[in-house]
Amino acid sequence: MDDVKFAVLGTGGIGRRTLEVSQQKDGLTPVAACDRNGLAIDHDGLDVAELLAATEGNVASERAEDDHGDDTRTVDNTSAVDDSDTRPDGGTAVKQHGEGAGVVASEQARPTETPIQDVIDESAALDAVLLALPNLTHDFIPRTAERFAEAGYEGVLVDVLKRSRVIGMLYERAELFEESGITFVCGAGATPGFLTGAAALAAQSFVEVEDVEIWWGVGLKSGYEDNRGTVREDIAHLEEYDIESARELSDGEIEAIVDEHDGVIEFDDMEHADDVLLERAGICDAADVTVGGILDVRHDEKPTTTTVRVTGRTFDGERGTNTFELDDATSMAANVNGPALGYLQSAVRMNRVGDYGVFGPADLMPGF
Amino acid sequence: MDDVKFAVLGTGGIGRRTLEVSQQKDGLTPVAACDRNGLAIDHDGLDVAELLAATEGNVASERAEDDHGDDTRTVDNTSAVDDSDTRPDGGTAVKQHGEGAGVVASEQARPTETPIQDVIDESAALDAVLLALPNLTHDFIPRTAERFAEAGYEGVLVDVLKRSRVIGMLYERAELFEESGITFVCGAGATPGFLTGAAALAAQSFVEVEDVEIWWGVGLKSGYEDNRGTVREDIAHLEEYDIESARELSDGEIEAIVDEHDGVIEFDDMEHADDVLLERAGICDAADVTVGGILDVRHDEKPTTTTVRVTGRTFDGERGTNTFELDDATSMAANVNGPALGYLQSAVRMNRVGDYGVFGPADLMPGF
Repeated sequence: MDDVKFAVLGTGGIGRRTLEVSQQKDGLTPVAACDRNGLAIDHDGLDVAELLAATEGNVASERAEDDHGDDTRTVDNTSAVDDSDTRPDGGTAVKQHGEGAGVVASEQARPTETPIQDVIDESAALDAVLLALPNLTHDFIPRTAERFAEAGYEGVLVDVLKRSRVIGMLYERAELFEESGITFVCGAGATPGFLTGAAALAAQSFVEVEDVEIWWGVGLKSGYEDNRGTVREDIAHLEEYDIESARELSDGEIEAIVDEHDGVIEFDDMEHADDVLLERAGICDAADVTVGGILDVRHDEKPTTTTVRVTGRTFDGERGTNTFELDDATSMAANVNGPALGYLQSAVRMNRVGDYGVFGPADLMPGF
Repeated sequence: MDDVKFAVLGTGGIGRRTLEVSQQKDGLTPVAACDRNGLAIDHDGLDVAELLAATEGNVASERAEDDHGDDTRTVDNTSAVDDSDTRPDGGTAVKQHGEGAGVVASEQARPTETPIQDVIDESAALDAVLLALPNLTHDFIPRTAERFAEAGYEGVLVDVLKRSRVIGMLYERAELFEESGITFVCGAGATPGFLTGAAALAAQSFVEVEDVEIWWGVGLKSGYEDNRGTVREDIAHLEEYDIESARELSDGEIEAIVDEHDGVIEFDDMEHADDVLLERAGICDAADVTVGGILDVRHDEKPTTTTVRVTGRTFDGERGTNTFELDDATSMAANVNGPALGYLQSAVRMNRVGDYGVFGPADLMPGF
């Protein structure tokens, strides 16, 4: 494939790690990266090393949805790019080193009040845009994508969102994306994303899928202090809380919850979009999919092995369970950013032949 | 996806099982099936139940390459469709029940001297053709595909071939396929195919893949008598033999080899196209891929679990091994025919948007 020029909206953990991973991949050139205060852009390719060095630990924080995907999580929930009117109450800034807040600390960046619009204005030169945005409100990513479509962007959009309910909002806009010439791959991180794809592939032995069980383990390499936002977001998945009530918790209350769990929090039946994405691909009913996992806030090591189990019935009447297992040594950062860029590359291939619309990871797998 | 009308060339184990599996899938309508003596065709859809009932155990045998893919293997190496001049020495007919030899035993079929040409003549009404042919000579599938292209076929071709050396022959013809409007997915059975795709997906955690190990277990549910051809082909993979010398073995000699191994034959470092397909997709060097497995001629159960192990280096400097494992209860028939139809469906999607050329299973996975 020819060189793919892409932009990253959001320079939090996921955005920055994606830039880093792309340096180790062939044919991927990051040309723009922004956060809510600034934009770095160079159509010949960003100097990623400089950008990362300048912005590491130097970003503004925001209480919002992050992806499980990033267990380096040096700075999470900090990728807020927000020049829309949907900006929620700001969170606590976790780290503010250097002179600028966020990407403007890089010598390649300039401050801007309208970072997303600035990227849209340059989008004719982009093959793909990774929306590494915290989903500040549920319609934040759909509405951002809509703005690209309305501006006539012809290219790829990829997000790494998690919540099931957002997926429908994207599919509702499918026609708009098709008209513009956009190939949108949604939920393309670790889960949903990597593991959704694995489930779709593992289903190929079967003519009927009965059960998909996605189970993840995440260790927090960088500890609790660097991961307040993520821990907050995860707590929103606990039965006793939801996004709103988790947002209201004070830092002290969150620490108390973590302490109650001795730092190890188990999540069952999470609202992760693997379910609707597998249903849309015709593989099983959303109700047949369960997502859960264990977050260890105090240790580097994963508290449990990330596993996908797909149980089904074969054409010849047998019942079995195929299994996909990630090595505990693979960080969730690796498991978010590799697949996000992998799906992005697939989407660019599709986009170049005129294959437009909204796709989930499972749609990019062999048909079921 | 709209209904996919497809033909199957070859009604041996793989061809017939594919027809059977397609009955349990949505949106797939088999409209033609042929072997070297006859053709069944109905553009409104074949009566698969009648065809299978009429032809079960009623086919002519041929010594040739079969796919590991079929451990029901009621009749293998019998899918010979051969109206070209490449027909090798005929093998031994294993079973010849019923009045006709092969597909003509079905009331939907008629005898023909030129089954492949007859399908080509009807190909304007086909979305896809599955080449479930034994690769009688190494260029048999490439040359058959060439004939479709020369006739101006616009649609999908899928094969389930195994040998690495055939892949290059297909890619050499890529331009011809592109000009015709053909989307060709090669090596789309179990291995290569299902497991190649799994390796490509498992690689997504890594920025560098060091090692891919594909290991299969096959039990022969239907016993040795029904599987002479497959056992012969497998023996060709043993270090002491090759395709030519295995073809020369008498049935008695083969039985002696099986006896020597107490019915359980282990294969190491097989020439399976997973290697070149993963290399072409940019995932690793062909030399980093090893394929092996164990065939138990005397038991239904798999003698070992089919597993894919992908070892690589993550962007953040870790080394790990991701694993994909098929349940022992999934027959290799399920693991060939499900993926073959899955890749076929993906290829139809690609074909409909004008995405032509030659692709391996790994090319259909997220980019690496």
